[in-house]
Amino acid sequence: MAEKWIGVVGGVGPFAGIDLLGKIAAETIANQDQDHLTALNWSQPAKIVDRTEYLLGQVAENPAGALAAQVQQLAQMGADVVGIPCNTAHAPRIFNQIRAALAAANCDVHLLHMIEEVGRFLRENLPEVKKFGVLSTTGTYRAGVYVEVLGALGFTAVLPPFPLQTEKIHPAIYDPIYGIKACGLATPQAQENLNEGIAALKTAGAEAIILGCTELPLAFTAPTAAGLPLIDPTRILARALIREANPAKLKPLI
Amino acid sequence: MAEKWIGVVGGVGPFAGIDLLGKIAAETIANQDQDHLTALNWSQPAKIVDRTEYLLGQVAENPAGALAAQVQQLAQMGADVVGIPCNTAHAPRIFNQIRAALAAANCDVHLLHMIEEVGRFLRENLPEVKKFGVLSTTGTYRAGVYVEVLGALGFTAVLPPFPLQTEKIHPAIYDPIYGIKACGLATPQAQENLNEGIAALKTAGAEAIILGCTELPLAFTAPTAAGLPLIDPTRILARALIREANPAKLKPLI
Repeated sequence: MAEKWIGVVGGVGPFAGIDLLGKIAAETIANQDQDHLTALNWSQPAKIVDRTEYLLGQVAENPAGALAAQVQQLAQMGADVVGIPCNTAHAPRIFNQIRAALAAANCDVHLLHMIEEVGRFLRENLPEVKKFGVLSTTGTYRAGVYVEVLGALGFTAVLPPFPLQTEKIHPAIYDPIYGIKACGLATPQAQENLNEGIAALKTAGAEAIILGCTELPLAFTAPTAAGLPLIDPTRILARALIREANPAKLKPLI
Repeated sequence: MAEKWIGVVGGVGPFAGIDLLGKIAAETIANQDQDHLTALNWSQPAKIVDRTEYLLGQVAENPAGALAAQVQQLAQMGADVVGIPCNTAHAPRIFNQIRAALAAANCDVHLLHMIEEVGRFLRENLPEVKKFGVLSTTGTYRAGVYVEVLGALGFTAVLPPFPLQTEKIHPAIYDPIYGIKACGLATPQAQENLNEGIAALKTAGAEAIILGCTELPLAFTAPTAAGLPLIDPTRILARALIREANPAKLKPLI
């Protein structure tokens, strides 16, 4: 089987796309540069309106059109399997439109669904955990992305109380002064907010935490927080892309 | 002036390309995702033979052909200004051939020369330092890339003694067990070897150290080592790409 080419829609956000590329490289079995997979990254963030703002009704334009255009550009460059490292873009109101736009353009590239890949990963690797806490943007929160996908698989997703979500969790990602998007790293304030979220989710019975925004893994380098395992959808998407491109090069899970 | 698009030839090596993309994002003035620059990354490492092996006569094929093809693909996708985050690829025997191949193909994309950008940076920002130590692959070492470019600017480049270069410095990058390329990070053994190199360069009179292989910044998070300032050509290339794409978005140097 010929090795397939990986495409990545970058820029949503910029650091999340780069994190995904890094995780693809890190999860690939390679002894030298030449062993690494072909990866194409198209990052044109100015064209893609904020996914959360769209879901909350603050902008009218659905980002699906621009996202689909970038998936198509990747396909035209030769990408066979594509990932979008943005949880919020997987809300049905956005992701279904991306799929519709690709179908309308007769683009048959294999676009992975990051959240479905997370569900598959949990079913295969953490079947004993039934209740997952989810940290995310308010867009992902309100769209119920994880609640729906995990629910369909028999898991329960618990979310932080809404005031905590809007006053602490979302700003940890988006605040222009201390947010991860603006700073490219987790500032002490962002870290403190997120720790508060994890404590609330633990109190609500969460047995593991899904870092449900692709900026959040930047805030957590350890595999656990407050004693709970952390689930990194970016890493899961990276592994799924390698699996589809060339499963023989996927590192064993450790 | 319309904002220009940045192209990156990734995969040489994979982690260096990702490091460059990360530094482009980190050096860009942006308050939200949409403010970031358009960046296209073409990473097809299987096509590009090892640059050092070519310079040392261990493989016959000049990697310039494959590198030029990837620059052309970036240009076809719309990139206006392109960088190749691999010091060894800037040896004249490789880089001059890339330029010749692009000219023959009538590709007038603006391809930056990373080492010339380093020279420009040093002249503008460290004019008082006259003697630079260089850590690099043995390919860059033997090709005299930095010695030549810095010499033309009136600086002196000092290199580690040859046995130290081949037994410690090159393996810190390339060793299949502990090298940065294979591991994606600086293992303790790689770090120890590099520290030995810096000590030798300091003894030889170096007043600053150029991390002259794009894998090396992964080993150094502090701005100095053994009391000497560290110069990161990847960061300099990132800043040069932003300068060419949209100078108004280049963060001030700190």
